[in-house]
Amino acid sequence: MKVTVSRKAHFNAAHRLFRKDWGFEKNDEIFGKCNNPNFHGHNYELIVSVTGEIDKETGFVIDMKILKDIIKSEIEDAFDHKNLNLEVPEFKELNPTAENIAVVIYNKIKPKLDDVMELEITLYETPRNFVSYSGA
Amino acid sequence: MKVTVSRKAHFNAAHRLFRKDWGFEKNDEIFGKCNNPNFHGHNYELIVSVTGEIDKETGFVIDMKILKDIIKSEIEDAFDHKNLNLEVPEFKELNPTAENIAVVIYNKIKPKLDDVMELEITLYETPRNFVSYSGA
Amino acid sequence: MKVTVSRKAHFNAAHRLFRKDWGFEKNDEIFGKCNNPNFHGHNYELIVSVTGEIDKETGFVIDMKILKDIIKSEIEDAFDHKNLNLEVPEFKELNPTAENIAVVIYNKIKPKLDDVMELEITLYETPRNFVSYSGA
Amino acid sequence: MKVTVSRKAHFNAAHRLFRKDWGFEKNDEIFGKCNNPNFHGHNYELIVSVTGEIDKETGFVIDMKILKDIIKSEIEDAFDHKNLNLEVPEFKELNPTAENIAVVIYNKIKPKLDDVMELEITLYETPRNFVSYSGA
Amino acid sequence: MKVTVSRKAHFNAAHRLFRKDWGFEKNDEIFGKCNNPNFHGHNYELIVSVTGEIDKETGFVIDMKILKDIIKSEIEDAFDHKNLNLEVPEFKELNPTAENIAVVIYNKIKPKLDDVMELEITLYETPRNFVSYSGA
Amino acid sequence: MKVTVSRKAHFNAAHRLFRKDWGFEKNDEIFGKCNNPNFHGHNYELIVSVTGEIDKETGFVIDMKILKDIIKSEIEDAFDHKNLNLEVPEFKELNPTAENIAVVIYNKIKPKLDDVMELEITLYETPRNFVSYSGA
Repeated sequence: MKVTVSRKAHFNAAHRLFRKDWGFEKNDEIFGKCNNPNFHGHNYELIVSVTGEIDKETGFVIDMKILKDIIKSEIEDAFDHKNLNLEVPEFKELNPTAENIAVVIYNKIKPKLDDVMELEITLYETPRNFVSYSGA
Repeated sequence: MKVTVSRKAHFNAAHRLFRKDWGFEKNDEIFGKCNNPNFHGHNYELIVSVTGEIDKETGFVIDMKILKDIIKSEIEDAFDHKNLNLEVPEFKELNPTAENIAVVIYNKIKPKLDDVMELEITLYETPRNFVSYSGA
Repeated sequence: MKVTVSRKAHFNAAHRLFRKDWGFEKNDEIFGKCNNPNFHGHNYELIVSVTGEIDKETGFVIDMKILKDIIKSEIEDAFDHKNLNLEVPEFKELNPTAENIAVVIYNKIKPKLDDVMELEITLYETPRNFVSYSGA
Repeated sequence: MKVTVSRKAHFNAAHRLFRKDWGFEKNDEIFGKCNNPNFHGHNYELIVSVTGEIDKETGFVIDMKILKDIIKSEIEDAFDHKNLNLEVPEFKELNPTAENIAVVIYNKIKPKLDDVMELEITLYETPRNFVSYSGA
Repeated sequence: MKVTVSRKAHFNAAHRLFRKDWGFEKNDEIFGKCNNPNFHGHNYELIVSVTGEIDKETGFVIDMKILKDIIKSEIEDAFDHKNLNLEVPEFKELNPTAENIAVVIYNKIKPKLDDVMELEITLYETPRNFVSYSGA
Repeated sequence: MKVTVSRKAHFNAAHRLFRKDWGFEKNDEIFGKCNNPNFHGHNYELIVSVTGEIDKETGFVIDMKILKDIIKSEIEDAFDHKNLNLEVPEFKELNPTAENIAVVIYNKIKPKLDDVMELEITLYETPRNFVSYSGA
């Protein structure tokens, strides 16, 4: 019996969408006000969903306290109250779009889980815009 | 790397559930108070989800501004503050249940997207009732 | 010790904003698309807040079951799945703006409460627009 | 055309996570404060999602009133304002984790639906922790 | 310039509504299924609102970290995953209605704040029922 | 009959809490991670509440379209996707705490309203932290 267990978390961060190898005009055309060189920011709401068999002993797929700790050490401590472009190594050369942030979060959490577990990341950039990624 | 990008939108509309080819009694039996001939209405909350590869150049699956514009021109301009039964051509002969509205929205948005994109429509008729359709 | 007790409820309805004594052009200028003669509709979310002393015996300001029943008989049964303009007597000559609906709800619930109770009505017409009225 | 229809419901209950065949120390190590012998409780928010073909006659996958009645008789009447460990037979020998509760709810609702319908249960134990199960 | 600063928090707890000095029948008549002797429970959502002058130096009415710590030590540590009737001393002789819980929370937090600060407590017992108390 | 009309809006922005006349250590002690020199950011959710008499002619306290336009021109155009410290003149010498932002928003909107209208600003910095200011 496979069940999906989900945990919500959040972090606040500044970011800017742009490519160093494009001039300001092209960045402005593609990224609009998201290309503000002084940055803007978001309250990112994160849902981490882990799918696996229910452990007969405990009745858990994964202990929620363990999942909460993984999210804290891998994501919240690394991203919260940070400037994603300047302070988070994964985005030194990668544009911090919601899509790319979701992939980075997936890649940071996946190795911390038992191999048989499936993982899906849902990331709200604003209450009206969100993305999800499950490694496929 | 396939990522799903979702955008929330909303529209307010009046509607009535009934079939012209049924008498009032049968409509009343099946549709209950939703068959009120004077109409009732809803704040429809809509989530449009597009799945595709992340563009390496931009970091986007689809530019959210473009998706927002498609939703506005295809759905909000056509449905908002309208009587679905009387003013939206797709429902002239089709009962505007949440299920049918979701299919109509899917069919209006799908041709505006790149063919390789997958689409899912989630439609909240009330905060407690919602439907989703992905073309299958 | 005065405590305020609040109960959420909801109803779906169709309405139209207009004045019979104005022509279509003036109605259109003032009420815009809310003046659609075929009606549009909303999921109205209602919060009824009653303020009074805590009863020493029960620990209640008002029994929530009683408040729930008052809301059901006075508001939900009268407004839900109705056309406010055509089917709710209070709006036969009164424009069903959110402001006026809140006042009507206040006037229907107030007489059902103990005289010493204070009442406030909060009415969401959409998730982004709401009004409140407390009889002053 | 397969559409998924979802209905939200809720129930309040007390529970305790523990195994009778473990001593207090092991229960405490695994279940922490959820093992409080005096119980604690939750507002469980439930989403029941049914997938099937749209009925051409009615435009419904399933009549929402019927789905609402199934949820009421099978789940709300059985679980609401109850102590899950002491009063709900399914948990006499089964630890009432969110995962196990979701499976129990699935197993109670599935036989009430037409065989061709697919079912998914999503259960929020708190606003930040939730699980889902679809019988696989 | 007086500003109100609010912080949301939450705790899960079991409780039962009843009076020791009433028989089961009267308790049942007044408190219905909330009088279940085996307890039931809630996710209580709490909003603590502090009103005072903005400090010219810091731009804060109160440092949110300090307010968060007060809520944690006074309320979350004392109430979370507890049985309110059996384990929280304030409710040994006081019926744990939402109204009474709000007053107890007010009385625990108020002495921890600067005397000139005003305090309001809002407590959601369920997403549809909530109470507020400001000491008057 | 005085009614309060509220409209929700939102803007995303980067900011940093610090005082130029304090050294880094004191800023760090008081503002913690909010003092990150590279900025962090938020999705600010704003509620603008206007209280006044219902206009007998229109049934409105204030036309919601007019209120929406005032919020757009005064607040969203000025703050959205901006760095509050570097790009919004009001915060050149004023620490952009939620409290101070609420006061600035109040002072920008108040002169655009009829003098007899009362105004309250509620600003969510995160889903769990918010402030309100009504000019007193």
